[in-house]
Amino acid sequence: MPNGCAASYTRGGIHSETIKSVPELRKDPITGRWVIIATDRAKRPTDFMRESFEPKGGRICPFCPGNELKTPPEILVFGRNNSRTLSEWTLRVVPNKFPALRVEGELNREGEGLYDKISGVGAHEVIIESPDHMLTLSTMPEKRVEDLFWAFRERLIDLRKDTRLRYVILFKNHGEAAGMTLEHTHSQLIALPVVPKRVQEELEGSQQHYGYKERCVFCDIVRQERSDQQRVIIETDLFLAFAPYASRFPFECCIIPKRHTSHFDSVSPTEMQNLASTLQRLLQKIDKTLEKPAYNFVVHTAPLQDPSLSYYHWHIEIIPKLTRVAGFEWGSGFYINPTPPEESASYLRDS
Amino acid sequence: MPNGCAASYTRGGIHSETIKSVPELRKDPITGRWVIIATDRAKRPTDFMRESFEPKGGRICPFCPGNELKTPPEILVFGRNNSRTLSEWTLRVVPNKFPALRVEGELNREGEGLYDKISGVGAHEVIIESPDHMLTLSTMPEKRVEDLFWAFRERLIDLRKDTRLRYVILFKNHGEAAGMTLEHTHSQLIALPVVPKRVQEELEGSQQHYGYKERCVFCDIVRQERSDQQRVIIETDLFLAFAPYASRFPFECCIIPKRHTSHFDSVSPTEMQNLASTLQRLLQKIDKTLEKPAYNFVVHTAPLQDPSLSYYHWHIEIIPKLTRVAGFEWGSGFYINPTPPEESASYLRDS
Repeated sequence: MPNGCAASYTRGGIHSETIKSVPELRKDPITGRWVIIATDRAKRPTDFMRESFEPKGGRICPFCPGNELKTPPEILVFGRNNSRTLSEWTLRVVPNKFPALRVEGELNREGEGLYDKISGVGAHEVIIESPDHMLTLSTMPEKRVEDLFWAFRERLIDLRKDTRLRYVILFKNHGEAAGMTLEHTHSQLIALPVVPKRVQEELEGSQQHYGYKERCVFCDIVRQERSDQQRVIIETDLFLAFAPYASRFPFECCIIPKRHTSHFDSVSPTEMQNLASTLQRLLQKIDKTLEKPAYNFVVHTAPLQDPSLSYYHWHIEIIPKLTRVAGFEWGSGFYINPTPPEESASYLRDS
Repeated sequence: MPNGCAASYTRGGIHSETIKSVPELRKDPITGRWVIIATDRAKRPTDFMRESFEPKGGRICPFCPGNELKTPPEILVFGRNNSRTLSEWTLRVVPNKFPALRVEGELNREGEGLYDKISGVGAHEVIIESPDHMLTLSTMPEKRVEDLFWAFRERLIDLRKDTRLRYVILFKNHGEAAGMTLEHTHSQLIALPVVPKRVQEELEGSQQHYGYKERCVFCDIVRQERSDQQRVIIETDLFLAFAPYASRFPFECCIIPKRHTSHFDSVSPTEMQNLASTLQRLLQKIDKTLEKPAYNFVVHTAPLQDPSLSYYHWHIEIIPKLTRVAGFEWGSGFYINPTPPEESASYLRDS
């Protein structure tokens, strides 16, 4: 059977003919999710079909300076010294014009027979990270990246006052393959009246670990990753960027503060600066190793109204978009990762 | 702001200008997952960018009759009357040539400090559903669809003998956008030494419901859907095809037997025939309404070694691939569905 056909049996583009070792099933130490790590047909960076992303410009863009009136009124702005010079700014936060959730209205919890629903009260905001249409998080001045996180912190503190809200997600869709629809660099935040399932699972898993060991599982991970070194990509005084042991996706990365903190808004100014530099260095490595792929990142922090938690630890997940997620993954919550995280980390470390 | 720009703020291609009602947050009654149902900007079938899929043929195909020696040796074959006429068959089951898991080897459970792993023992098989390269599940004779499920049943019964295995997933990736790599119609099965997280969640959720109410939550859903009628797509004597109340995706469908059965392999011959006809009718409706979209389906059944369970109920999830899943969904396990299931059901019912 020709190699090309054989490869297309399963997940496409696999060209290794020799089978070296037995694949591994690895368990995520926080959520308990199992992942297949296909060690014997490891995919290298060049094995993936990628859609590279770079801003092209040339179109009328509602996020560019001069078009401030094309967005809903600003919630937050950085870098404007005079309230009259509308187009002077370095960062803007505006409501999403067609939000998935809205701030107005009462929070009604209702049953429909067996089913439960809540009116969709919440917030959906856009953080425009730079006035320059052609920049990305890896090419903009580091201070702009830092400002994104300062803006997120301010929004967290402000949204907490609305006691209907339980959780705020900060995320970025970079590149069309990652769900981006407007190329001018921006992140989004969604505030919810419920805690999302994935975060709930992390909270329950880490609480359980704390119950057994009286230690934060994330702090344990930081310790083990620093001692193993195999999956570490960047280590600074304050942060660790690494490829998680049970990564679902090739080149999946995690950035975590070394200091135990459950809520993102407790970061110190030094940490903020260090976080921006770590994220930017990591994204530059990803751009170089994987040729400017599309990616998503999501900040995981403790629920908005919770006090400081000894068992939870905020962190950022970064997922380059290199594979199509197929039926198997959707239907089972079980993932096959064709690149062992040790190899992903090694490629990124050396780039 | 021009409408086109506004739309691209968030999730692209939304053209409604008027906001009619507050979106809803709905809770999945089995797993407790919350979903935003964007009722005020509902997307119709024509609003989605789709990649239609139809087999093209014309290439050498390892799954076509005459090429039997290009696949690993058969595990199961239907329709061959004489063992010498290799290319006479109606269905074949063969091991995946580059499997994610392999049957050989011992099941070793191992710790790596904080982390846990198991050697990747399991099975990965391909079910070639028809000798005719140009057919799909919606165009092949109904008996061929039925045979797919008979084959799955036989494999379940056979794989159960291997006590290392805890779970078998049957799934299909139809069309490239759904992860298909070889166009000749086939499904896949993966046998695992662990129960996948998603199924574990369903088991725990339904056990909890049973604990409170002493009723199967799936049977409760069948009752409520039949009485509501809004989300029903097809109802036969033995099966219900409907759009789940807290659907994550537009046009997500579920097929469930009316008779309480936890394990797929307990289906009766009458049910088997009725299941094939229900699935085929549903796929024909999906093909018509959404112009032959890519889709995935996954069969959810009880764990392999478990006895008959009063709280679990097997079913099939069918997800047309119409949207890109963005960072928000990945990172949070929280979904935004732009088409209320009541509307999806109405389109499919009327097609």
